[in-house]
Amino acid sequence: MTSSIQIQLVRRPVGTPSPADFRTVTVDLPELGEDEVRVRNEYVSVDPYMRGRMNDAKSYVQPFGLDETMTGGAVGRVIESRSDTLPVGTAVLHGFGWRNVAQGPAQQFSPLPETGLPLSAFLGAAGMTGLTAYAGLKRVAALREGDVVFISGAAGAVGSIAGQIARKLGASRVLGSAGSAAKVSLLKDRYGYDEAFNYKDAPVRQQLRALTPDGIDVYFDNVGGDHLEAALDRLNTGGRAALCGAISQYNDTGRTPGPDNLANLVTRSLKLEGFIVGQHQDLQPEFAEKMTQWLTEGSVVFDETVVDGIENAVDAFLDMMKGANTGKMLVRP
Amino acid sequence: MTSSIQIQLVRRPVGTPSPADFRTVTVDLPELGEDEVRVRNEYVSVDPYMRGRMNDAKSYVQPFGLDETMTGGAVGRVIESRSDTLPVGTAVLHGFGWRNVAQGPAQQFSPLPETGLPLSAFLGAAGMTGLTAYAGLKRVAALREGDVVFISGAAGAVGSIAGQIARKLGASRVLGSAGSAAKVSLLKDRYGYDEAFNYKDAPVRQQLRALTPDGIDVYFDNVGGDHLEAALDRLNTGGRAALCGAISQYNDTGRTPGPDNLANLVTRSLKLEGFIVGQHQDLQPEFAEKMTQWLTEGSVVFDETVVDGIENAVDAFLDMMKGANTGKMLVRP
Repeated sequence: MTSSIQIQLVRRPVGTPSPADFRTVTVDLPELGEDEVRVRNEYVSVDPYMRGRMNDAKSYVQPFGLDETMTGGAVGRVIESRSDTLPVGTAVLHGFGWRNVAQGPAQQFSPLPETGLPLSAFLGAAGMTGLTAYAGLKRVAALREGDVVFISGAAGAVGSIAGQIARKLGASRVLGSAGSAAKVSLLKDRYGYDEAFNYKDAPVRQQLRALTPDGIDVYFDNVGGDHLEAALDRLNTGGRAALCGAISQYNDTGRTPGPDNLANLVTRSLKLEGFIVGQHQDLQPEFAEKMTQWLTEGSVVFDETVVDGIENAVDAFLDMMKGANTGKMLVRP
Repeated sequence: MTSSIQIQLVRRPVGTPSPADFRTVTVDLPELGEDEVRVRNEYVSVDPYMRGRMNDAKSYVQPFGLDETMTGGAVGRVIESRSDTLPVGTAVLHGFGWRNVAQGPAQQFSPLPETGLPLSAFLGAAGMTGLTAYAGLKRVAALREGDVVFISGAAGAVGSIAGQIARKLGASRVLGSAGSAAKVSLLKDRYGYDEAFNYKDAPVRQQLRALTPDGIDVYFDNVGGDHLEAALDRLNTGGRAALCGAISQYNDTGRTPGPDNLANLVTRSLKLEGFIVGQHQDLQPEFAEKMTQWLTEGSVVFDETVVDGIENAVDAFLDMMKGANTGKMLVRP
């Protein structure tokens, strides 16, 4: 009998989650039914949006159930199969993360294309993370040739890809913020950012102003709070902000006042638009084609921070929320 | 020799403007030059956006100069002419408001079409005010058949027209807020709002929630502040807010924190977009055709609050800022 080590939510976190809000269980898996597959996960994704799922609040994804194994993106290979379409050895992308072995109906597992890219890329640059960056810049922010683009949380999973995509889409200048000197160097030396700053060094408002004498045209927001406020100060007339997330506020327990300069929206005809990648799945084919080429030729690079052991998945998640990762945070069960 | 009574700004207001920030002067007008006309203004417009022009701040319109006569929308008739295109008697729309007699090059005065509508309508429902409502709902908020629409400051110049246009564009339900019981009655009985409330009666958040069990799809914002925050609570997934102005904040001297629920932008894929009517002039021909028909057949109605005497223009402006008007505030010199 095969067993699966899985992470469950046992208590809804108030504020910053703690390890005690979770537990690790070992589950004996039943025999496969007809058309079912069993998959050994090679990488499991931990993402900021999962913090929202830990609350019992109406949102764009269902809350995690208490005392149930959490779900999320994962890639792996079929190790046992009663499906004709997914024979043993097939590499698959699926939603049964937070565990080392997954099983279920074959239709809930998507075979991955043969691209030569590592499986892990399909949780990051070549997957939902990359599509988030692409859809946010191309469609939501309607990035145009020559735009000056500012990206917050620029060394994170989405941000590290977004800066490179912004350039591909014609940005004339790409600026980013990150939370350490090492990350700032990475932005400039590896991800091709023209300018970058450490948001812990001085107020974001002040640092961004100093770096943008001609303002910005597009803001890609992963952080919210002081970053959004600073960007609203600097957006030029007709500027657009694509709001992808606000990791600075996901653990807030009270109501946090918004930016003090929303009046700029009217006087400068600005647009703020929130989005989730799920609404832009129609861009997936064009994204997959372009990104596979960019990654294969090396004109877009990506980094991963990998934590070994499914029993360390909670720590990986908590560290990611604190910004300990560079690029995509992954767990290798 | 003809003279002109004109209103000048003599001091930049800090906070709420006072009459001492202005002065009334009588100017002797020179003889007309070639291709110039002299116009007796019949109505002069006072609008919320003028408050911004009283500050010395970069914005979408130039600040008023100190010790100079202010400018703004006005309609009148040519009383003396050295122009072949604008003979004496021609009704014109122009930007030389805040005075009883205007003169200048004929090309700066636009002859008004023969429509049977009163001249004053071209400063309100059939003019920039109406186009603001039309462009904001149709293009910025992309109003769709069946949308639930909430409009703040709904008894004002823009709001009173916006509610009626929303219905014309297919809104299934139109809600509005205003600052008195009399205005609330007007919204329901005259402007066709389905629901309306007095924002002074109880917190906007609470009143709007009670009236919108199924949320709202479009918000047309004339007020900002608590109204914007309340609307963000109620906007459904994919909802759109067209930000036309924030009269509640125009006299603020400090920085006012923004709404505490901007996180909804991401989780519900909301769009907030500020706009100024000047960027939507391309809609003017279709707007003029439709609005002329609606006003002529009486399917859209409008109200005016008229103050007599150009020397009372400042009071009219200050009263308008406090919400004393119903519909368009005008000065009849």
